[in-house]
Amino acid sequence: VQIRNPYLLFIGDASDQLAAKTADGVAQWRRDWCAGQLRLPGCKADLGLPDKTLEQAAAEGVKTLIIGVANRGGKFSPNWVETLVKALELGMDIASGLHNKVQDIPEVAEKARQLGRQIHDVRHPTQAFEIANGVRRPGRRLLTVGTDCSVGKMFTALALEKEMRGRGMNADFRATGQTGILIAGSGVSVDAVVSDFVAGAVEWLCPANTPDHWDIVEGQASVLHPSYGGVTLALCHGSQPDAMVCVHEPTRPHMRGLPGRPVPGIRDTIAAHEAAARVTNPDTKGVIGLAINTHAMPEAEALAYIRRMEDEHGLPACDPLRTGCANIIDRLNTLF
Amino acid sequence: VQIRNPYLLFIGDASDQLAAKTADGVAQWRRDWCAGQLRLPGCKADLGLPDKTLEQAAAEGVKTLIIGVANRGGKFSPNWVETLVKALELGMDIASGLHNKVQDIPEVAEKARQLGRQIHDVRHPTQAFEIANGVRRPGRRLLTVGTDCSVGKMFTALALEKEMRGRGMNADFRATGQTGILIAGSGVSVDAVVSDFVAGAVEWLCPANTPDHWDIVEGQASVLHPSYGGVTLALCHGSQPDAMVCVHEPTRPHMRGLPGRPVPGIRDTIAAHEAAARVTNPDTKGVIGLAINTHAMPEAEALAYIRRMEDEHGLPACDPLRTGCANIIDRLNTLF
Repeated sequence: VQIRNPYLLFIGDASDQLAAKTADGVAQWRRDWCAGQLRLPGCKADLGLPDKTLEQAAAEGVKTLIIGVANRGGKFSPNWVETLVKALELGMDIASGLHNKVQDIPEVAEKARQLGRQIHDVRHPTQAFEIANGVRRPGRRLLTVGTDCSVGKMFTALALEKEMRGRGMNADFRATGQTGILIAGSGVSVDAVVSDFVAGAVEWLCPANTPDHWDIVEGQASVLHPSYGGVTLALCHGSQPDAMVCVHEPTRPHMRGLPGRPVPGIRDTIAAHEAAARVTNPDTKGVIGLAINTHAMPEAEALAYIRRMEDEHGLPACDPLRTGCANIIDRLNTLF
Repeated sequence: VQIRNPYLLFIGDASDQLAAKTADGVAQWRRDWCAGQLRLPGCKADLGLPDKTLEQAAAEGVKTLIIGVANRGGKFSPNWVETLVKALELGMDIASGLHNKVQDIPEVAEKARQLGRQIHDVRHPTQAFEIANGVRRPGRRLLTVGTDCSVGKMFTALALEKEMRGRGMNADFRATGQTGILIAGSGVSVDAVVSDFVAGAVEWLCPANTPDHWDIVEGQASVLHPSYGGVTLALCHGSQPDAMVCVHEPTRPHMRGLPGRPVPGIRDTIAAHEAAARVTNPDTKGVIGLAINTHAMPEAEALAYIRRMEDEHGLPACDPLRTGCANIIDRLNTLF
């Protein structure tokens, strides 16, 4: 199911910029698809897009209202409901990255049904997946992996796709989380899939393709993460990665959400994910580059750290945001 | 939620003994709980229990009707529905290991609601689990792992529990699949849990306990299985096993359901599961014994194979069915 664009990005009464980070990601990576932003009174976030009313957006041909904001306490406020119903009446579909389902708001669900509009609750997969078969399939796949959750695997995958497309390569970002799905217009929230079917969902997400085609698969968590490792292993098995890029955030005091548990080292992380990838792709080149998330470091320190990682691991390293990832795609092109 | 015993085992019109294998497992491992079997005309299976009518069972104090048979084509035949409704009327709960939910049969669900009876669709977890935290907890845990699906991990776990209890040790089997849940009276079908929560469900299943207590956790699949590896990894992380027993079936031509994919070797299987277990239990003793499922081998060949495995791997080996597993518990007691 493809979410239709152009989008109007709804950020409601976001309390700060962080509350609108899903919409921020869409605006950053798919600006061409974004006709504008819709903010309610009291909104403290700004996506840097023109403010548009629903009527203006509809007149310009917007196809989908994207809910790109975390709602407070998981509740939909009544003024949101009014906005969503009006969007449907003006011809738009609705796509949401929220935990709470838009489909569970009776007025909105009923209106969508009456008018034949789509509601995409992208965190909640609705299709049935097959059990994975582990059979090799044509086409190339790159998976972003990492030393922890929320280190920048989606960002890195999107930066790699952009660099590859800029060079005329045939590459598609494949989304496995809610923000990625809104950016790609499709995908699967793998952490919400019943565990038996996760590897099968990933096989579906990055299917057989032409030999020159690359799927750049958004990674999740880490096989060394005690809460979510199973999700990551299924991603490794299902995507059969020919190559991986390992993402690391050097300043984190412990694994996210797990005080007292140190972040595993890059070397152990590489070894664990390469072992996982070999189960379904014995020919994998493994980790071919490092993406270092240096947002918390000053420039000089960041660049020195990246150089040191290159030396320590014998791999091209970058910060996709600060330095770009051309050196990783250079390496990819020497290997494949 | 505990399924109340005694049980009456319903095997309907099972087409052969294999169709009744869930009930067979319950009758084998919890005979004390089983008041009898209930068979419909045309049933080709026999559990070796006395045939009882619903009325007889009710008079003897049976608390739960266990549906321990695979239904044909996933359909409930009308004569099943009549039986289930009558069981409820006679005061019994219903527990089912079927894919199709008993709760989805309107007449049965409505009757249960009216009468205040429980329906346990054990393949379909209904409780909400927390995200795993990976924090070490007191008590000991042993996890059965294996080279493939359906090699005998549940059987081995139950045999280990029996051996330990026979020695006066404090041990509880913890069920992770539908047959195991009917045998234990409780548990979680981990492969039906949303992937994000599997490790958390396992932490819930084998919680903190006294230092001398052993949870014997039923394993599923293998971390090297391309379809279900993520489920297994979450089991390893969530159970923090102090010890593991590796189960192997030596005559299988390929992994179950995956023609062309050889069964991984015992050595690779041990290494992969020990690496997984160390993530949440750095002090794990790893695999401390081998359980060889030799049902397809003649006696002399089976015993020779078991001896050879002992020599090759430097671990006590057994076939829990053919030789018992005393040597593995001997080893356990020297290590802990």
